[in-house]
Amino acid sequence: MLTRLFMYHTAEDPFAFPVGPRLLKLRLFVQSGQGLSCTVIHADRYDSPGCELPQEMERIGCAGAYDIHEALIPAETGKCRYLFYIGNPAGEYVWYGERGISGNREQAGAFQYAYIHRPQAITLPAWSSEAVVYQIYPESYHQGTLQGITDKLPYLQQLGITAIYMTPIFESPSGHKYNTSDYYKVDPGFGTLEDLKELVGTAHRLGMKVLLDAVFNHSGDTFFAFRDVLERGEASPYKDWFYIHSYPVSGAPVPGYETFAKAEASMPKLNMNHPEVADYMMEVAKYWVREAGIDGWRLDVANEVNPAFWTRFRRELKAEFPDLLLIGEIMHASGPWLRGDQFDGGMNYLLRDAVLEFFAAQSAGPVRFMEQLLHQEALYNDQANSAMFQLLGSHDTLRFLTACKQGGRGWDREATAMSRMRLAVFFQMTYLGLPMIYYGDEVGMEGATDPHCRGLMLWEETEQDTGLQEWYKRLISLRQQHEVLRKGGFRPWFTDETRNVLGYIRRSEQDRMGLIINNSPNRYHLELPNYRCDKNLLTDLLSGLNIRSSTRILVEIEPFGCMMLY
Amino acid sequence: MLTRLFMYHTAEDPFAFPVGPRLLKLRLFVQSGQGLSCTVIHADRYDSPGCELPQEMERIGCAGAYDIHEALIPAETGKCRYLFYIGNPAGEYVWYGERGISGNREQAGAFQYAYIHRPQAITLPAWSSEAVVYQIYPESYHQGTLQGITDKLPYLQQLGITAIYMTPIFESPSGHKYNTSDYYKVDPGFGTLEDLKELVGTAHRLGMKVLLDAVFNHSGDTFFAFRDVLERGEASPYKDWFYIHSYPVSGAPVPGYETFAKAEASMPKLNMNHPEVADYMMEVAKYWVREAGIDGWRLDVANEVNPAFWTRFRRELKAEFPDLLLIGEIMHASGPWLRGDQFDGGMNYLLRDAVLEFFAAQSAGPVRFMEQLLHQEALYNDQANSAMFQLLGSHDTLRFLTACKQGGRGWDREATAMSRMRLAVFFQMTYLGLPMIYYGDEVGMEGATDPHCRGLMLWEETEQDTGLQEWYKRLISLRQQHEVLRKGGFRPWFTDETRNVLGYIRRSEQDRMGLIINNSPNRYHLELPNYRCDKNLLTDLLSGLNIRSSTRILVEIEPFGCMMLY
Repeated sequence: MLTRLFMYHTAEDPFAFPVGPRLLKLRLFVQSGQGLSCTVIHADRYDSPGCELPQEMERIGCAGAYDIHEALIPAETGKCRYLFYIGNPAGEYVWYGERGISGNREQAGAFQYAYIHRPQAITLPAWSSEAVVYQIYPESYHQGTLQGITDKLPYLQQLGITAIYMTPIFESPSGHKYNTSDYYKVDPGFGTLEDLKELVGTAHRLGMKVLLDAVFNHSGDTFFAFRDVLERGEASPYKDWFYIHSYPVSGAPVPGYETFAKAEASMPKLNMNHPEVADYMMEVAKYWVREAGIDGWRLDVANEVNPAFWTRFRRELKAEFPDLLLIGEIMHASGPWLRGDQFDGGMNYLLRDAVLEFFAAQSAGPVRFMEQLLHQEALYNDQANSAMFQLLGSHDTLRFLTACKQGGRGWDREATAMSRMRLAVFFQMTYLGLPMIYYGDEVGMEGATDPHCRGLMLWEETEQDTGLQEWYKRLISLRQQHEVLRKGGFRPWFTDETRNVLGYIRRSEQDRMGLIINNSPNRYHLELPNYRCDKNLLTDLLSGLNIRSSTRILVEIEPFGCMMLY
Repeated sequence: MLTRLFMYHTAEDPFAFPVGPRLLKLRLFVQSGQGLSCTVIHADRYDSPGCELPQEMERIGCAGAYDIHEALIPAETGKCRYLFYIGNPAGEYVWYGERGISGNREQAGAFQYAYIHRPQAITLPAWSSEAVVYQIYPESYHQGTLQGITDKLPYLQQLGITAIYMTPIFESPSGHKYNTSDYYKVDPGFGTLEDLKELVGTAHRLGMKVLLDAVFNHSGDTFFAFRDVLERGEASPYKDWFYIHSYPVSGAPVPGYETFAKAEASMPKLNMNHPEVADYMMEVAKYWVREAGIDGWRLDVANEVNPAFWTRFRRELKAEFPDLLLIGEIMHASGPWLRGDQFDGGMNYLLRDAVLEFFAAQSAGPVRFMEQLLHQEALYNDQANSAMFQLLGSHDTLRFLTACKQGGRGWDREATAMSRMRLAVFFQMTYLGLPMIYYGDEVGMEGATDPHCRGLMLWEETEQDTGLQEWYKRLISLRQQHEVLRKGGFRPWFTDETRNVLGYIRRSEQDRMGLIINNSPNRYHLELPNYRCDKNLLTDLLSGLNIRSSTRILVEIEPFGCMMLY
């Protein structure tokens, strides 16, 4: 019975969100495998019944148990009322509104998008849509100093990098520096404020942006306020800056205070609900932008800090520095933080999981990979998707090449590891969001999880995989040449589970590009469905070969090969 | 295939929300009619794999296309990782986590509830859980003045009312006063500030709270700031307090500015994103609490005002007046406004729709009614559900008795209208949330939609339906005697579609009460399933009759009768 078909929508991000001051995007999840067609019937919220207009929805694809259907609907006054009409191939249909699913339109009710508020139709800093990001772990990059990094900026520029993100550089007793001693001071081991200014200045001259990493979830136990609590106990004026369980305060054997993770004594959790602490950290965030001219913040453990702080953080920072990019570290589904009032984007570890599974471990085939891509895109609004840091690895994970060597199918998995890494990079550079390269990945660095993934950068050319490096350069360059790869939408094209091949399309109003990935050790002749490109001849931008395009497209693809049809 | 079974959860309110500083409530929607059993596997987010504990979920009931399963899980550190294990009667099973549904646990991933923030574990003002609310339209109540209302407070006290909510009383040229001229002045037709103080003071002495209605979405066109814009055009310092399309500003033939609804020239929309306007209205809101001692605000067209204003509104008002109740007028699904950072509760028009359908129109039977109740409860967290204003009608709708006369089944629909109204009141007084009575409903007032529903209150005893009035009194009194009716949870008991009878249970840790409604003109002998009450003898609190309770419960129920088994 069709009324027992489960579907899901709610008139909220990421199921309903503005993509302009007068345009609403709607997403509907319906049970997959039923061949359902969906129509949205919409009107102004204050129009009388009868004024509704029907609009066919686009079936984006299957995300596992559910299919995603989308529509862009006009909302002249910003106030929109709508419901869905869902039919199956047998001619049965149901209505779906805020009162549920019903064969009776009135009983289904209607969804209401109350009002598109102007601040909701936010725009990202213009520079971010061009960004190819490079993550640096300063301790290990070059001489272990900011000056060393500055020296290597021309190298990064040549690679095609347009933004660097450095893990924390503020004074701290550790190598990773996630336990801050002094939020206002560059760690003396890394250099001085002047060194930072020179780094930022040089980067800007070379056309690169600089993001720093701030830790507001916790401080180090050497932070002046926490030291005061350790020394003076309950008499300390800073005692409410933390969550102290008992006095006198001690870090051992078990911390007598709340910490990051589980009992990390050197990382006492900050009480960001305390106005003094919030004010203090707001000033820190502004200071470095004003003083050093940085272009963005990456915020550590952003998911455990009170969201009320982040809404203030965004409001105040974006008001003073509209071109600042704000990225939250949230290692799981990040919807609540990416609705336009907190972060622009996040560190996309979920995407990395899917990429690992498909390319490195090869424990999932093209069907699941495509389902995961659609499932993940549907977690966020378009704006957030366009600002995600799309990473294959970071200082907190094993390196991607190492994962490829550990995983993969067949006896020759180690021999194919580099090929699979190259495919993953191809995917990264042709997908949505902002590709983020973890330092050294581009020259074939290996390393298991922390601390092994934080090794010294390979600068010896003889040790570098220069072929891989060229591959990165070439793909970055193609991404920069073709706006559709940076700004276009993503659509599935085909999945071939047997051959382990898949295709997807990037498209904008003006442009279309077809991308094909052969995740198998075999050479194939494939006959592919045309993707409604109106050109008769396509060029593979990688090989330069021309391919005739009619109702079908015939291609030959190398083992672990990929194609970029344009 | 079970992996193609669609289900839905997200680690956010209303699917995951704290019910205490260390306790998380989870809701899972799974396809109905499959006899699925659900288990949640949970751990601290920083515990290693293997530490997870399984917990069986409770199947709350069917909400149409989906069943609702819930669990309360402990979250010692406030950080929780979990996934679901769903099995069917054939022994098949799947895992469901943030990466989707899979037969493979690892591929499903896990949901992450990042951190329970202390301010999220909010509590309502203690008085609100006892509240039975009475809505007054001042123009029509008694002499059309505040003094007139004060005179009638003893009447309301006798009825059992503990809180009154008055539609706007601030200066305005209209009868409804939703187009405010002066936010700081009681409308002279209604009285003075002193009259308001006397009203509030008398109410407090009689044990009643007072809520006022504020309109911050728009002002009247006679508001000083808008008058200035009309007069001075672009030179007005208030021009950005509104959304002016063109100068000189005019209200006719089409308003040259954004308005409430469609072209309501007398209601120019306020730009609540403007700091001056926001500051002004914040002061208004505080002034009336300080000056007149009111106990709550009902906020008009709350859904169209920038949510950022409401978060500030709540933060500042609750800090100064923790016992203030904040109710938003949102006439549709209100989730985004009821997550703990904006309103305590809303005007529950969705519930009214379901009640109208079942009791007044009788266009839906018990199965759909029960499904609607569960569907709606699942839109919100527990706290919001406990603070909803549960209304049968208001100044914006036709009166409930009128709806009963217009609707219903059979040739004698008009004759049964009062019986059905009484059943609806029984339901209202035994359901979740805060019952809200629209003035005059308690004495059988009738009236079609606005303006007919805003008629003069019937004070002539000969014209009043005193039987209905007694029914209200009795039910309010029973509600006040039995905490389980005010604070207990709601569970379906049974639905009998053929007979048009249903039963539900209110339950707390200590208490259980069974409620039965016969929405048909027939007398029935019913054999009901026991609802796991450990008592052998139940009493119907309405008739005083004792009923034996074993594995089955035998009852006799009158036409349009109801029972309260305790």
